[in-house]
Amino acid sequence: MKVGIIGLGYWGPNLIRNFMGHPEVDKVYGCDLSDDRLNFIKSRFPSAELLKDYNEMLKKDISIVAIATPVDTHFKFAKMALDSGKHIWVEKPFTATSQEATELINLAEQKNLKIFVDHTFIYTGAVQKMRDLVDSGEIGDIKYFDSVRINLGLFQHDVNVIWDLAPHDLSIMHYLMPHEKVAAVSAHGIANYYDHENVAHLSVYFENNCFAHFHVNWTSPVKIRKMLVGGDKKMLVFDDMENFEKIKIYDAGVEISSKEKIHEALVQYRMGDMHSPKIQATEALSLGAAEFINAINENRDPKTSGKDGLEVVKILEASEKSIKNKGKLIELNTPELV
Amino acid sequence: MKVGIIGLGYWGPNLIRNFMGHPEVDKVYGCDLSDDRLNFIKSRFPSAELLKDYNEMLKKDISIVAIATPVDTHFKFAKMALDSGKHIWVEKPFTATSQEATELINLAEQKNLKIFVDHTFIYTGAVQKMRDLVDSGEIGDIKYFDSVRINLGLFQHDVNVIWDLAPHDLSIMHYLMPHEKVAAVSAHGIANYYDHENVAHLSVYFENNCFAHFHVNWTSPVKIRKMLVGGDKKMLVFDDMENFEKIKIYDAGVEISSKEKIHEALVQYRMGDMHSPKIQATEALSLGAAEFINAINENRDPKTSGKDGLEVVKILEASEKSIKNKGKLIELNTPELV
Amino acid sequence: MKVGIIGLGYWGPNLIRNFMGHPEVDKVYGCDLSDDRLNFIKSRFPSAELLKDYNEMLKKDISIVAIATPVDTHFKFAKMALDSGKHIWVEKPFTATSQEATELINLAEQKNLKIFVDHTFIYTGAVQKMRDLVDSGEIGDIKYFDSVRINLGLFQHDVNVIWDLAPHDLSIMHYLMPHEKVAAVSAHGIANYYDHENVAHLSVYFENNCFAHFHVNWTSPVKIRKMLVGGDKKMLVFDDMENFEKIKIYDAGVEISSKEKIHEALVQYRMGDMHSPKIQATEALSLGAAEFINAINENRDPKTSGKDGLEVVKILEASEKSIKNKGKLIELNTPELV
Amino acid sequence: MKVGIIGLGYWGPNLIRNFMGHPEVDKVYGCDLSDDRLNFIKSRFPSAELLKDYNEMLKKDISIVAIATPVDTHFKFAKMALDSGKHIWVEKPFTATSQEATELINLAEQKNLKIFVDHTFIYTGAVQKMRDLVDSGEIGDIKYFDSVRINLGLFQHDVNVIWDLAPHDLSIMHYLMPHEKVAAVSAHGIANYYDHENVAHLSVYFENNCFAHFHVNWTSPVKIRKMLVGGDKKMLVFDDMENFEKIKIYDAGVEISSKEKIHEALVQYRMGDMHSPKIQATEALSLGAAEFINAINENRDPKTSGKDGLEVVKILEASEKSIKNKGKLIELNTPELV
Repeated sequence: MKVGIIGLGYWGPNLIRNFMGHPEVDKVYGCDLSDDRLNFIKSRFPSAELLKDYNEMLKKDISIVAIATPVDTHFKFAKMALDSGKHIWVEKPFTATSQEATELINLAEQKNLKIFVDHTFIYTGAVQKMRDLVDSGEIGDIKYFDSVRINLGLFQHDVNVIWDLAPHDLSIMHYLMPHEKVAAVSAHGIANYYDHENVAHLSVYFENNCFAHFHVNWTSPVKIRKMLVGGDKKMLVFDDMENFEKIKIYDAGVEISSKEKIHEALVQYRMGDMHSPKIQATEALSLGAAEFINAINENRDPKTSGKDGLEVVKILEASEKSIKNKGKLIELNTPELV
Repeated sequence: MKVGIIGLGYWGPNLIRNFMGHPEVDKVYGCDLSDDRLNFIKSRFPSAELLKDYNEMLKKDISIVAIATPVDTHFKFAKMALDSGKHIWVEKPFTATSQEATELINLAEQKNLKIFVDHTFIYTGAVQKMRDLVDSGEIGDIKYFDSVRINLGLFQHDVNVIWDLAPHDLSIMHYLMPHEKVAAVSAHGIANYYDHENVAHLSVYFENNCFAHFHVNWTSPVKIRKMLVGGDKKMLVFDDMENFEKIKIYDAGVEISSKEKIHEALVQYRMGDMHSPKIQATEALSLGAAEFINAINENRDPKTSGKDGLEVVKILEASEKSIKNKGKLIELNTPELV
Repeated sequence: MKVGIIGLGYWGPNLIRNFMGHPEVDKVYGCDLSDDRLNFIKSRFPSAELLKDYNEMLKKDISIVAIATPVDTHFKFAKMALDSGKHIWVEKPFTATSQEATELINLAEQKNLKIFVDHTFIYTGAVQKMRDLVDSGEIGDIKYFDSVRINLGLFQHDVNVIWDLAPHDLSIMHYLMPHEKVAAVSAHGIANYYDHENVAHLSVYFENNCFAHFHVNWTSPVKIRKMLVGGDKKMLVFDDMENFEKIKIYDAGVEISSKEKIHEALVQYRMGDMHSPKIQATEALSLGAAEFINAINENRDPKTSGKDGLEVVKILEASEKSIKNKGKLIELNTPELV
Repeated sequence: MKVGIIGLGYWGPNLIRNFMGHPEVDKVYGCDLSDDRLNFIKSRFPSAELLKDYNEMLKKDISIVAIATPVDTHFKFAKMALDSGKHIWVEKPFTATSQEATELINLAEQKNLKIFVDHTFIYTGAVQKMRDLVDSGEIGDIKYFDSVRINLGLFQHDVNVIWDLAPHDLSIMHYLMPHEKVAAVSAHGIANYYDHENVAHLSVYFENNCFAHFHVNWTSPVKIRKMLVGGDKKMLVFDDMENFEKIKIYDAGVEISSKEKIHEALVQYRMGDMHSPKIQATEALSLGAAEFINAINENRDPKTSGKDGLEVVKILEASEKSIKNKGKLIELNTPELV
């Protein structure tokens, strides 16, 4: 199998290295407009074949095109690749609009091609363990989901901090609760320095009795990457800044004896043992590459398909409408007028 | 000086102990309807004089009445005390509505009596140090304020988690930025167990280029009490769960060279040294009692006056309207239709 | 039952409070030479009867004498109490020499009186949990025991930092491994400021294949109270500075396939899940008082008897000989020449 | 300048990469007996020239030979390189005995060749900052030095845990106190699994009023890498497991008013602010390579010369004699009989 990669910036070398490391991949092509990047990649990966012309690459006998360019170009490059009969791997977020995402999904289905959206975190040992814990019923029904991803980070010139950071956490939420429907979204924040928000808070209402919140910030002096998942049986904390003990499961909960008469005596708290399971350490990107190649071979959708990418894009899109209107509630799945 | 305390529940003994410890206080009265509480207090504070009838206590030669009853009774007891010519100390939150707060403030002014709202945190060494750092200009203009106060806590039967936990953080925000006007408020959350929200997120928009957010939760498996204050010169973290090093000041910031052309090359990050100042360890409540007695003696408002209490109540009141309408933006200082 | 306490310094009020709180204790006497301390105790415990003359107190109808005076007076006061037919509670360390300890143990046995040595930590939820884990076989055989207890603390004028801080950790070690015989002791350290060492390291050799080490320091800028217990099945960490999760059990270990040919390939490491059990929060001193009263009623030795106190004193005594000779190995149970 | 590296195991690729990255190095040779290692290195560094015969490499026009083989072969390979007129870079520990180290130092001096001992930690930003703080006088005189380096690690088949882990910490101690003379050494520990100790404690006595201790352990369930440096002005903590804030300086100390009468009232503790300076993040090995090349060009000893390596080896050698005799005190600089 041959793989072509367009966009050899920050993430490009990781894609090359991981595809090259897969036993079924015998050749990797790279494509970028910048001579500097091409030279740098050549020095690190002498066996890769590099081109400047994307059309040229699409003519090669490649099965997968991986798109690691700015988000507003994803649709164009993805459509060209699908039109050329290639399976596509697209960096997060999938597309700039849900309409683009839908169009790509439909096109791929018509041509029986597969779409992989690179929600890399899904392939980490920590998220796989979280999913296992939810699937096994140990956590119970999820009552709330809370995520914080803040640090002193690189401002993006084309999108705000939600589009930059929240896709990671939204994809994890969606992976843990694939069947829960998002009803509405509200986003608040501030753009202290230029047009795009550097601090933002995103609230997500579900159709059932669950609520999620995402705090993202490019201008925090401390780096925090922490998630709480409050189940009605147990509660879970995922702290990605820990070197060890990234996942902690608390045998904690609240029980209310009677809904009629709420007062202290009837609320019972339970705080028991804590358990921190061992986490697999295999590099997530390598597992992602393997999953996509398996999905293609087995003619099925990968774990992070275009449809999963669309769910994330729908929330991002709604958040944008909301934050520009100071938290106006944007319902999903229902057309709204701005 | 004599002090009378109504409400001898959880916080009452602390009030008795701290007022008794003040050199100008020679007698403390206590008042509660519960015989059990009165007996318990008698065993611990044999010198306190205890009564069941509040009217009886108001007839005593006391200067200060401290009100530590449920919030919906604050107004009634406070008005009676002011009418009897007593200065009042009121537990947080000051009142159940801004109208009640305004009425008490006006009444006290007419009678030249003082109101102390027990925003205890203001008198901690940590918050005093934060205020010093802001006043000295070391932090610069505050760009954002972020607070998290979550744990597995006691549900309140009469109010939601915002009314229970956020007054601490709102009073600190107001103390650090006394001159900044709050423009509007939006609150989101979920009530997983009964009528009142157990998870909530409160966004506060200011009239200037500043934004604040408050995350409160009674159903978190971990206890977090952390504040970020993002200044344009330095940034500050207050972590109240630390035994030492509660305050950390980061010489961190962002500079944008040009507002016209935003791209990576023009954004500069600065991350320099961190400094953790020594914090005074005197019990906050004892400093609060001293402040109130000084304010009375000097015929001035205390640091945490009725007006400060009102500012917090206005935000709480708006948050209630907002959260019941999924984050509807509620403007302050402007009458809105629900 | 009536209890008399001699020595009303730092720890005295805790003894009074906890004995008073025990349902079988109907009267507490206190004895101290200082009028200041007597007045302070009177104000806090109006029901206690206070005396300046120890002989006077011994004439009262008391069952237990608790001795909370400097260690070099323990023997004298303890012997007087036993001679008067009282059970004795002695603060740690039990005595200044092993000969004193032996004499008290023998005297108590002759008179069928009980000795309780106040190794308070034994009665904490954390140490009880550790003992359970060892007793159940979950940890396996203990291979090493490592303890660190350092902070910026109060210098003692009569003893060095080992005598001051290590009794806590030595008593825990002895409680976890009651049947292991200590073979020899070596201590190193430095006295930077005056005659007594402020930094010290104590190595303890056992007769079997186990080794223990204790690091104590009065001049550390940070406070650490941490213990490692390395079993051949699991390993345990007790971090007393944690508010929650004080005990962590690691499913970690080392297996060596062959003792003949040691090289990397034959050493296998196992690092699995971590588990942090819930810890009981009852005040240790109150459980200690209850244990002693039960032991007296049941005519048995308490969990922390004179014999346990003697084991700790033997190590302290040996450490003193060793540290003054730069770590000279001092064998226990065997007469040595200095 | 050309560089030859012998020993292409775990550390070899790092040496190749860093020497290749130096602007003055135009060619790197590698030498190893294993075809597997040679093939692996070839795939990662196509431009390196690889050989199996060390004599062959010594005939090349190389200036520096870097020796990354097991410690008991250091002397042989180093002597051959010096005899061939090459400067030598030797991995830590420098040699297996102090006699070997002395012979190499003398030989290099005769031939005006330079020796670099790869005490890599010396070139980290953290250790450079520590040295600056000591040199500036901010810390004052060092009273004690305490180091802990423990984890669940790779057993070495040829040496115990002191020889494996302590060289890092001993080199840092020596770098911070280059003029303090070590007087004597004592080591304790246990070999739970085979001949070599897996837990060890090393005490170092200085000729002046300073003391150092090193705790190393291959069988700890938690990873700790922490150093305390107790100065008489300030105290310093270096925690290498922190991602940020690796160095913390505490304005803490002890003052004793009078040496005659020591009692509590005369001991004063000071605990003021804490300061955590920014640490340079440049890769230590690259700075080490640059330092060696500069030292050669400037005909001077590098910061980590053979003499520095010898000081570390002397302590390791003494520790071995001591630990096999349960902590027997071994004096340095004085011939002792075993």
